[in-house]
Amino acid sequence: MSDIVRIAIDCMGGDDAPNIVIKGAMLAYEQNKNIEFIFFGNSEIVSPILDKFPKLKNNSKFFHSSDVILADDKPSIALRKGKNSTMRLAIDCVKDGKADVAVSAGNTGALMAISKIVLRPLPSIDRPAIVTSIPNEKNSGTVLLDMGANVECDSDVLFQFAVMGHAFAKISLNIKNPKIGILNIGSEDLKGNDAVKNAAILLKESDLADAFYGYVEGNDITKGTVDVVVTDGFTGNISLKVIEGTAKMITNVIKKSFSRNILSKLGYLFASKSFAIAKNMMDPRLHNGAMLIGLNGVVVKSHGGTDEIGFCNAINVAISLVRNKINDKIINELKE
Amino acid sequence: MSDIVRIAIDCMGGDDAPNIVIKGAMLAYEQNKNIEFIFFGNSEIVSPILDKFPKLKNNSKFFHSSDVILADDKPSIALRKGKNSTMRLAIDCVKDGKADVAVSAGNTGALMAISKIVLRPLPSIDRPAIVTSIPNEKNSGTVLLDMGANVECDSDVLFQFAVMGHAFAKISLNIKNPKIGILNIGSEDLKGNDAVKNAAILLKESDLADAFYGYVEGNDITKGTVDVVVTDGFTGNISLKVIEGTAKMITNVIKKSFSRNILSKLGYLFASKSFAIAKNMMDPRLHNGAMLIGLNGVVVKSHGGTDEIGFCNAINVAISLVRNKINDKIINELKE
Repeated sequence: MSDIVRIAIDCMGGDDAPNIVIKGAMLAYEQNKNIEFIFFGNSEIVSPILDKFPKLKNNSKFFHSSDVILADDKPSIALRKGKNSTMRLAIDCVKDGKADVAVSAGNTGALMAISKIVLRPLPSIDRPAIVTSIPNEKNSGTVLLDMGANVECDSDVLFQFAVMGHAFAKISLNIKNPKIGILNIGSEDLKGNDAVKNAAILLKESDLADAFYGYVEGNDITKGTVDVVVTDGFTGNISLKVIEGTAKMITNVIKKSFSRNILSKLGYLFASKSFAIAKNMMDPRLHNGAMLIGLNGVVVKSHGGTDEIGFCNAINVAISLVRNKINDKIINELKE
Repeated sequence: MSDIVRIAIDCMGGDDAPNIVIKGAMLAYEQNKNIEFIFFGNSEIVSPILDKFPKLKNNSKFFHSSDVILADDKPSIALRKGKNSTMRLAIDCVKDGKADVAVSAGNTGALMAISKIVLRPLPSIDRPAIVTSIPNEKNSGTVLLDMGANVECDSDVLFQFAVMGHAFAKISLNIKNPKIGILNIGSEDLKGNDAVKNAAILLKESDLADAFYGYVEGNDITKGTVDVVVTDGFTGNISLKVIEGTAKMITNVIKKSFSRNILSKLGYLFASKSFAIAKNMMDPRLHNGAMLIGLNGVVVKSHGGTDEIGFCNAINVAISLVRNKINDKIINELKE
């Protein structure tokens, strides 16, 4: 890897692609030095947008493909039809050493399936996972994995998630000694299923014993009790969406309460700046960018429904992971 | 059952018991006609409190026991030592037909274990579950089960949860045709584990086919997409606590943002009434009271950390379940 971070971008994934993708790349280009984009997209749609940003265009490569993985394509179909898809080409680019990282806002299942086939899992890793950090009360961020790649996980897999999450937290939260918790329905030893109980035993007997806090419960994710919360992809995905749903409900309820009458509207006016700070802290766009962790190569998934600010954030996550050599850190932790 | 609802109360369960229990009973006594309490508690502690409410005392029975199930007693220990515990005596009272319902804010695992041994599951029910309704955007409430009694559930058990949740929703949400969803990590047929997939098939082939909406995701719980969300006790318990944690985080962030400066404090002052309405809607005390569903008898669990308002709400839930003959409804649905 040179000092320049080379970012392969799937321009066609996401609800409002390629519009938000190119605009997001432009924002990231303005915020970061020494980055270079390699865009993969349908030139008919992408070129007119890229033409609007000549500075970005002149400093990036563009490759045309009209094959696109759709949001509802099954992973198996994506694998078959996808040899020349923009998503596949971006990941191939990482495999071939022409890019340091690939970013896509497309179909998560397809992205994971293609990444696994093309990049293969890291040595000692059975199942790559999806990991991200989410807002918490301490404003430090809680790393959560797996967020949905693996529905069922045995204790070995959960243990590997803990190792990878630990390495990821060091970079994404910028802390030296992240604390790890296993998500469970109580803190007592007898709680939970066999996978969870045995993963706890594995962690207690490993080099991560000091970093292992024990079991945590659902409310501990946003409380920030630990830095890394380990769970299977079923519970992780549901937890993440429950957080999104609850945040939305409360925000809507409060918004509604402020428009109740003149007095409450006035109140909102006075408090609007403070309100904006609170909103900012919870802004999902500023937490956008999940890593497909455990692969020979770095792949970052953006939320499909985000805008250019969110997509730019996913690119920033990608840059940070590359600059901080995430995969070397994981391999080292596995060796210890 | 006579017109009078007879409520057996475990006075000793809960963080601030028996104080909040007796005060909660007094509130419920003021709010409801034709109810009668049978209290079980340590007279040394309970009697001085009960003496403060002579009207309540004169219209209720009190039985002394100094045996108390502790919050951290394992279910197996609770079963062994608990023959004369206040919790056990309250449930025995339902079994013997002396009470129509038992209410406790004590140890959930112990309450479920004792209830199963004493009351036994309803015919055709393999595993009793914990069910409650939680706030949603539509302000109608979403029924969620299982909330933590059964860590692992096969498709038959999930199907039975759907039947019981359907009957519960009719009463607790006061609607005729509740919609049922199975909690999953996507809406497509191929998503999820075998238990979830097979439960969906069972529902589609059953008399509840019309009520079955399909899969729902984590954010659908608070969105109110369906009236009943069915899941195993592991995911259900974690989802519930994630909701609690997220609500707490956001409320704290907003509270903090309002105390930022004079202007924001003034804003809060103007909007305080609207804010109170929003807070009320989310108040966990007003949603307190979960049913141990699927037993030959009605048992209601109050949150251990609630206050008298919350405990009173749990009693109101108990009264409503008895008056609306919840168990007859479940048995009828199972027969159909």
